[in-house]
Amino acid sequence: MSKTAEIISIGDELLIGQVINTNASWMAQELNLCGIHVHQISVVSDSRQHILKSLHEAHQRVDIILITGGLGPTKDDITKDVLCDYFETTLSEDAHTVKQLEALFERRGWALTNINLRQSMLPASCTVVDNHHGTAPGMWFEKEGRIYISMPGVPFEMKPMMTDSILPELSKRFADGAIYHKTILTQGVGESFLSEKIASWELQLPENIKLAYLPQPGIVRLRLTGKSDDYNQIQSEVEAEAEKLIKLIPDLIYGFNHDTLEAICGDLLLKNSQTLGTAESCTGGYIAHRITSIPGSSNWFRGSIIAYSNDIKISGLGVSSIALQQQGAVSESVVRQMAAGLRTKLQTDWAIATSGIAGPDGGTPEKPVGTIWIAIAGPDRTIARSFLFGNSRERNIVISANHALNLLRKEILLSTR
Amino acid sequence: MSKTAEIISIGDELLIGQVINTNASWMAQELNLCGIHVHQISVVSDSRQHILKSLHEAHQRVDIILITGGLGPTKDDITKDVLCDYFETTLSEDAHTVKQLEALFERRGWALTNINLRQSMLPASCTVVDNHHGTAPGMWFEKEGRIYISMPGVPFEMKPMMTDSILPELSKRFADGAIYHKTILTQGVGESFLSEKIASWELQLPENIKLAYLPQPGIVRLRLTGKSDDYNQIQSEVEAEAEKLIKLIPDLIYGFNHDTLEAICGDLLLKNSQTLGTAESCTGGYIAHRITSIPGSSNWFRGSIIAYSNDIKISGLGVSSIALQQQGAVSESVVRQMAAGLRTKLQTDWAIATSGIAGPDGGTPEKPVGTIWIAIAGPDRTIARSFLFGNSRERNIVISANHALNLLRKEILLSTR
Repeated sequence: MSKTAEIISIGDELLIGQVINTNASWMAQELNLCGIHVHQISVVSDSRQHILKSLHEAHQRVDIILITGGLGPTKDDITKDVLCDYFETTLSEDAHTVKQLEALFERRGWALTNINLRQSMLPASCTVVDNHHGTAPGMWFEKEGRIYISMPGVPFEMKPMMTDSILPELSKRFADGAIYHKTILTQGVGESFLSEKIASWELQLPENIKLAYLPQPGIVRLRLTGKSDDYNQIQSEVEAEAEKLIKLIPDLIYGFNHDTLEAICGDLLLKNSQTLGTAESCTGGYIAHRITSIPGSSNWFRGSIIAYSNDIKISGLGVSSIALQQQGAVSESVVRQMAAGLRTKLQTDWAIATSGIAGPDGGTPEKPVGTIWIAIAGPDRTIARSFLFGNSRERNIVISANHALNLLRKEILLSTR
Repeated sequence: MSKTAEIISIGDELLIGQVINTNASWMAQELNLCGIHVHQISVVSDSRQHILKSLHEAHQRVDIILITGGLGPTKDDITKDVLCDYFETTLSEDAHTVKQLEALFERRGWALTNINLRQSMLPASCTVVDNHHGTAPGMWFEKEGRIYISMPGVPFEMKPMMTDSILPELSKRFADGAIYHKTILTQGVGESFLSEKIASWELQLPENIKLAYLPQPGIVRLRLTGKSDDYNQIQSEVEAEAEKLIKLIPDLIYGFNHDTLEAICGDLLLKNSQTLGTAESCTGGYIAHRITSIPGSSNWFRGSIIAYSNDIKISGLGVSSIALQQQGAVSESVVRQMAAGLRTKLQTDWAIATSGIAGPDGGTPEKPVGTIWIAIAGPDRTIARSFLFGNSRERNIVISANHALNLLRKEILLSTR
């Protein structure tokens, strides 16, 4: 029998809409992958009565209660005191946490203040969960067959705590291996086009395997979720369905599960001992940022020229001023010259170039907002493609990056075929 | 007395983390601006029992209950039936909605199917709220002094419904304009250091003004929330407290409310008719991305050289190979040369340069992971600062960018003093 969970997010900032509750979504996703069903998410205020009430209510509803927020060292952070009330215990100094704090502050070269040391005062009845990225430890309680886990609300601290300690422990205790997910990642076509393409396959899916469409700009993820008593059986059933799907739309699929376009490109480049650089105008460094977010990307990524102004397109990338005058910065000729120029300047094997009108202003009747040119230059050839996206600047930047990285992926594959 | 609200978000997609609950944040923000205090947000599943239970619980807690989701025409959308149960009423055809549907489908040139017409079957006891952007109308109920409003979960339909019909009606009934927020944005020190600095001010805050610490990497936002019967009075009380705070920590504050460091720098540069470029190593284009996410940034941002490899630091930015060999890429000498070199190459007034070990690998005993050098080059001088952050690559990139942008802001202000 799979366990149920409730996420209690504490914080007035969530209730006035100042902060979006991305923590709860991330936690729900991770819990789900461990076969733990999230029954409810409750966002409550930084108030003693409200937190206590939500703990009592959750106790009636679910097996596991995950609490985030209210663990800072300042006065408005009251979660620890409320937990002491709820579990009828008191705060006492945790020697292990004192040592962890001393080590953390020494590593960072900061002075350890009394306020920081308060973080080592913890409810006597809890099991401490180490926080390697901040000062507030997590707390694990058990009461009347329920598990309660309190964590900081700072995502950079909560996520590693979940991934490194809490999810493995929950999986160990409750694994019934009965849920198997497989996500097939597609790029280049929209949800409705895709659903028509795969309609007959979708119809023949067995009852115990569900399909969900998860759209992102330029990307649709197709998630298969299978449920069964036997893990090995549902795994092979879901994988068999995925195989059928792959045969239906091989050209649209770029990866699986947590793959990212930038990491896939990086793996291909590493394998080929090749290097990459970007020449970005409308994407303004976003592609470079995605790439350099990958640990070890310095092994295959050499750098970029972000040519936001036309004279840097000329001086930095060698684009001809005549092409800029005659065709404009957002044109096939210019984007090809940007890619080829970057490749020469930075001496890379591959180059991505982007030039477009991200919006919301700057459009013309011939080149409306959302017009984007992308070029890929490689050892054998340079290709260019144009797109017409929408009016949202943020979305245009992301969708351009996804198209550009997938074009690069295809060109690398073609060149080594 | 200001009214309280609960938002009930219905949908399994929220509970498996597939969709982030941005609807609730937006609604909370809007309600808050109308002086309606959001007491709780509850995310519940597409299940009859669960929705009924959450309605009963919310009835105990608040005055106004806003419900989103589960109003589509397909089988898994059960909200309407559950509402009939809860309010002891039945579905009946609403002639006005039939006309609205006919008009909508004619406008879009679509055929009106029986499934679509189902949307005109509505609980007999509700007041219908028109949906001008989709097929599912909103429903307004009143019961035992509570107001219940059910809306579609699609943001493009829910938001105009809120803005055009629901918020004006709620404001008319309950306006007491009694909540005022002011957020003071600080950069450079942690939550605990800050709280010691402002302890005496925090202690003297009146009962009706609350302070919250909202930390982000390298940033702490201090939010003051004042409540009173009179809007003008609470506004001036909160502003007066903010003034005291500003005098206490003038050097730590960079802005207010929704200000961002990149937009503040942009405004200063525009005012001075100056330009900016970045030379990024460890931040890998993230600073350029933050800047180019601002519409119109092309008026003051010229571009970047992302010098991820050492030879681009030499060829692209003119860094001396001797400095790279002797001091290493992560050094004061190199980061100063990067900033000065970028300024010359791209002919900008200002340049930001970053070089560091973002991690998780690449650290040495002398330069552990998290060691970051930042330089700012301007018309009068070049400055450089070193930092030691933590082990998270993602966090190190963000915190470096925030420090770099704030250093730039301070240098611009100094140069024009």
